[in-house]
Amino acid sequence: MIVALAGGVGAARMLRGLAQVLPAEDIVTIVNTGDDEMIHGLHVSPDLDTVMYTLAGLADDQRGWGLAGETWNVMEYLEELGGETWFRLGDKDLATHLYRTGRLSQGAPLSQVTAELAARLGVPARLLPMTDDEVRTRVRLSSGEEVSFQHYFVRLSHDVAISAVRFHGIDEARPAPGVMEALAHAGAVIICPSNPVVSIGPILAIEGVRAFLADHRGRVVAVSPLIAGKALKGPADRMLVELGGEASVVEVARTYADVAGTLVIDETDREQADLVEGAGCRAVVARAVMHDLRSAELLARAVLDAAGYAYSTPGPR
Amino acid sequence: MIVALAGGVGAARMLRGLAQVLPAEDIVTIVNTGDDEMIHGLHVSPDLDTVMYTLAGLADDQRGWGLAGETWNVMEYLEELGGETWFRLGDKDLATHLYRTGRLSQGAPLSQVTAELAARLGVPARLLPMTDDEVRTRVRLSSGEEVSFQHYFVRLSHDVAISAVRFHGIDEARPAPGVMEALAHAGAVIICPSNPVVSIGPILAIEGVRAFLADHRGRVVAVSPLIAGKALKGPADRMLVELGGEASVVEVARTYADVAGTLVIDETDREQADLVEGAGCRAVVARAVMHDLRSAELLARAVLDAAGYAYSTPGPR
Repeated sequence: MIVALAGGVGAARMLRGLAQVLPAEDIVTIVNTGDDEMIHGLHVSPDLDTVMYTLAGLADDQRGWGLAGETWNVMEYLEELGGETWFRLGDKDLATHLYRTGRLSQGAPLSQVTAELAARLGVPARLLPMTDDEVRTRVRLSSGEEVSFQHYFVRLSHDVAISAVRFHGIDEARPAPGVMEALAHAGAVIICPSNPVVSIGPILAIEGVRAFLADHRGRVVAVSPLIAGKALKGPADRMLVELGGEASVVEVARTYADVAGTLVIDETDREQADLVEGAGCRAVVARAVMHDLRSAELLARAVLDAAGYAYSTPGPR
Repeated sequence: MIVALAGGVGAARMLRGLAQVLPAEDIVTIVNTGDDEMIHGLHVSPDLDTVMYTLAGLADDQRGWGLAGETWNVMEYLEELGGETWFRLGDKDLATHLYRTGRLSQGAPLSQVTAELAARLGVPARLLPMTDDEVRTRVRLSSGEEVSFQHYFVRLSHDVAISAVRFHGIDEARPAPGVMEALAHAGAVIICPSNPVVSIGPILAIEGVRAFLADHRGRVVAVSPLIAGKALKGPADRMLVELGGEASVVEVARTYADVAGTLVIDETDREQADLVEGAGCRAVVARAVMHDLRSAELLARAVLDAAGYAYSTPGPR
């Protein structure tokens, strides 16, 4: 089996591609929970939900987040009440958060609640939160103010410069049940094309994860979330620059060199392959833009090939 | 001004009647919060909401709870997810709970959040929760099991015998800001026709309230929630019996004798007036069934007259 480290949308697309190639039971996904936040008292897990909704075929691909066929009755009334509505919670999506929050308040760990939700939504692959403990990504703005990740990402539309990122609670967080076991048994580990700082960063910072990958970096393949210096979605490019690096596949290679033997970069970045290798990752060039399921599948095949992972399903049809 | 002590539906109707007779600014309502419960992590205040929705003219009178024109999208999806749906939360109603829970989590006290919601919904009269502290009514079933009030009331449809009731947290609870001040300035205090045990009981048990009313019982008028031995809604009649009393206006008089000089009873209970007086309350007979706004107004007038409270609005039209 393989293990995928995942943030939100980019990872979800990659996983859909992988699910075209591998049997569902051969994919274990470890998902970032540093973006989790209490919204109106509800436990919202944006990355877990994006991955779960996407794998269940329920995501709204046009909007890029949330569920297809969503309705917004609660938000409408909340707006009338003068409540805070910057974090848009659809009615269907709210049901997920009510379920999660209710079960957590009964004492169920997040990993178990996630398994219940995934089963109910018909997600075949196994989804693990990186931890059952509370880790919260905090972003320091260049103004000096520190805000939650969702405040930065959604409320401020990540349209402000930052100076630092920290993962509150990371030192006490333990890997969720199954995380280290999955890594130990993985024939390949794929770091999905997610934000290296705030999506993959927290997963790597969970006790034991970075060290394990460093010891097995030969079978770890990262996929660059930057293509021609740009993130296809989200602020990864600007974040890397604002934190003192550069917006390039070379910077991604520097970030991952200790844990990933290989970095898959897009064809448009072919000329930087040597620099990527200089930074410590073998460079593999592929078409890394996932417009549709077909391109996601082709990328998945390229990644599995780069990992030297043998799979038996037929090649591109 | 007058102060009304209120539970849910019966109180809300009484308050609508009072609002026909008195200017809104002359009515302060102190509402039970012992029925409050965390549902899926959201702070639900059923009595506050029933009173608030009713006074705002937004209540669903047919259904007897919640908002008119309600939709149920979130509950539908929650049901699909296999979540607990015994406590029905409409989409509009959920917006109230999101608002409340969000503001409480920001540190605002319940009294302030209630004022904000009431203002937003256009409730003219002042609503005060009995306390900003956490009080939770717990019901011991005759099986020995102890459950939350909502578990008993909604989940079990109050269709089981009970052996005891207690108000968890009551000893540490302080009256909400404005409660004791309102009582001190009240020309009359009206105990609405709510459940004496679980609706009015917690309010009376808040530090200082019972003692204050006992010292001023001459201006306190209670309205019996029992008519001909029956509660018009809810389990007050059975509860009184199960806790060792009887289902009658005489029992209501016994319950309130130390705090209320007068008990208003329905015409059908006229023959028990002497027994009510024997139990320690002056008995005033009126039509106590509130079918509609008009009958609620007439009852309100009878209650204010019984309290000797002078009001200037014209008499029955």
